[in-house]
Amino acid sequence: MKVVEKIEELKQLIAQVKTAGKKIGFVPTMGALHAGHFSIIKAAREQTDFVVVSIFVNPAQFGPAEDIDKYPKTLDADTAGCEKLGVDIVFAPTVAGMYPSENLTWVNVEKLTEPLCGRNRPGHFRAVATVCAKLFNIVQPDIAFFGQKDAQQSIVIKQMVSDLNMPLEIIVCPTVREPDGLAMSSRNSYLDTEERKDAVLIYAALKEAELFITAGHRKSSELIGEMEKILKLSSRIKIEYISVLDSRTLEEIEQANGEVLVAIAVKLGQARLIDNIMLNI
Amino acid sequence: MKVVEKIEELKQLIAQVKTAGKKIGFVPTMGALHAGHFSIIKAAREQTDFVVVSIFVNPAQFGPAEDIDKYPKTLDADTAGCEKLGVDIVFAPTVAGMYPSENLTWVNVEKLTEPLCGRNRPGHFRAVATVCAKLFNIVQPDIAFFGQKDAQQSIVIKQMVSDLNMPLEIIVCPTVREPDGLAMSSRNSYLDTEERKDAVLIYAALKEAELFITAGHRKSSELIGEMEKILKLSSRIKIEYISVLDSRTLEEIEQANGEVLVAIAVKLGQARLIDNIMLNI
Repeated sequence: MKVVEKIEELKQLIAQVKTAGKKIGFVPTMGALHAGHFSIIKAAREQTDFVVVSIFVNPAQFGPAEDIDKYPKTLDADTAGCEKLGVDIVFAPTVAGMYPSENLTWVNVEKLTEPLCGRNRPGHFRAVATVCAKLFNIVQPDIAFFGQKDAQQSIVIKQMVSDLNMPLEIIVCPTVREPDGLAMSSRNSYLDTEERKDAVLIYAALKEAELFITAGHRKSSELIGEMEKILKLSSRIKIEYISVLDSRTLEEIEQANGEVLVAIAVKLGQARLIDNIMLNI
Repeated sequence: MKVVEKIEELKQLIAQVKTAGKKIGFVPTMGALHAGHFSIIKAAREQTDFVVVSIFVNPAQFGPAEDIDKYPKTLDADTAGCEKLGVDIVFAPTVAGMYPSENLTWVNVEKLTEPLCGRNRPGHFRAVATVCAKLFNIVQPDIAFFGQKDAQQSIVIKQMVSDLNMPLEIIVCPTVREPDGLAMSSRNSYLDTEERKDAVLIYAALKEAELFITAGHRKSSELIGEMEKILKLSSRIKIEYISVLDSRTLEEIEQANGEVLVAIAVKLGQARLIDNIMLNI
């Protein structure tokens, strides 16, 4: 496995891989890899011939009051984990390498970036789409793999790839959870013992929504009310949003029908945590 | 030479050309090809192994009051001209092919799109950058060729390619002129006999700016004044802008020094005409 920092070096390696006719799988990450990332990397390993994992904490996608400075950095453990899984290249560019001069070009996906995290993190998805476009152009993958936990991100990136005719496929891998249901996240490391216990309520609320729908309820406001009750069992949890949306358009729906995304974002101590489930009703 | 309408068909052909290790040259056009386009196509033919010319009048880059409906359409003559020059593929997609559903993704290049034509054609360069990103992703050229007449367009596209790490090079070809100096443009066909005579004043004004600078003058306001005098020799010419700018940042400069872009846009009868010269002072 190679760890590559320079874009030009990576491009030369990729050109060789392309010439050899190999199918390239790409997993973009911000590092601090956990079992969620590893399951995505395994999917890439199984479905493609040559796996590139990028590790880049993209400053552009963090707001001024967000956690870029404290975002966990574990490069040695990350590369060791990648090596164990048979990754071919870890691409870990510097900020100066990715943004050598003032970046004037932004890729904006309208509508899909407005609700959910887009409302609370202005400019976030514009920066995510832009850095993914950059990474796709550098790595030139046949397939890029994302995680279902960042549901809105996957939907935005899929739309970008389709609208801009980018020559790659997007595969979204299932959320990996701790034994008690908490979705794996690099930000879980911010939680103290008490907060970690309360964090289980996020997935509990989503499961409650599923049960409530299975029982025949369809009204989104009632669903949201049920989920709210569960999250409010912890005084530490500050709800940012609970939303029931059409999973294709990300428009909020009054009645849960069809392909539905149920999504939650909360603040818990120093962490901002998100989770979601997709339901086919 | 093949004329291809379907994106999927083109992609398959391109994949074969890539596998054969050929260097792809790409000339994006809106059709109504003239000697200016042909000189760009010749450059592509000389510098690459496989030449793709696209013909697509992109609705997104025309404003509601602009000339999309009357924009000249000469597909048969265009393909004949391309064939004569040894083009390999003319790619002529339909609007429905390029925009199969509502387009939500836009590529915006900040700052460089604000002055000059950006001021008078809001949304124009966002649509140009977006359609070029789409075409680059479809055609996957090694080099894309543009014309110097659309100076701002070339500068915007170069910035996009650099910022988004697109895997291609941009080459800008010199403006081709009629014997009397008028820059070749598909829109020249809108001019009646009298307007065509007056149109020569645009290039005359630019040459006057060059002479004025050669004589030692540097003050942009004086340069603009001199050019204005010449354009005002015709009562038919309505000046949209006369600008003296830093050719890299497209910021207006008070003193003409370094790499300078002198650019003019006018309305003349039914036509909106642009022209420019680059000066190294």
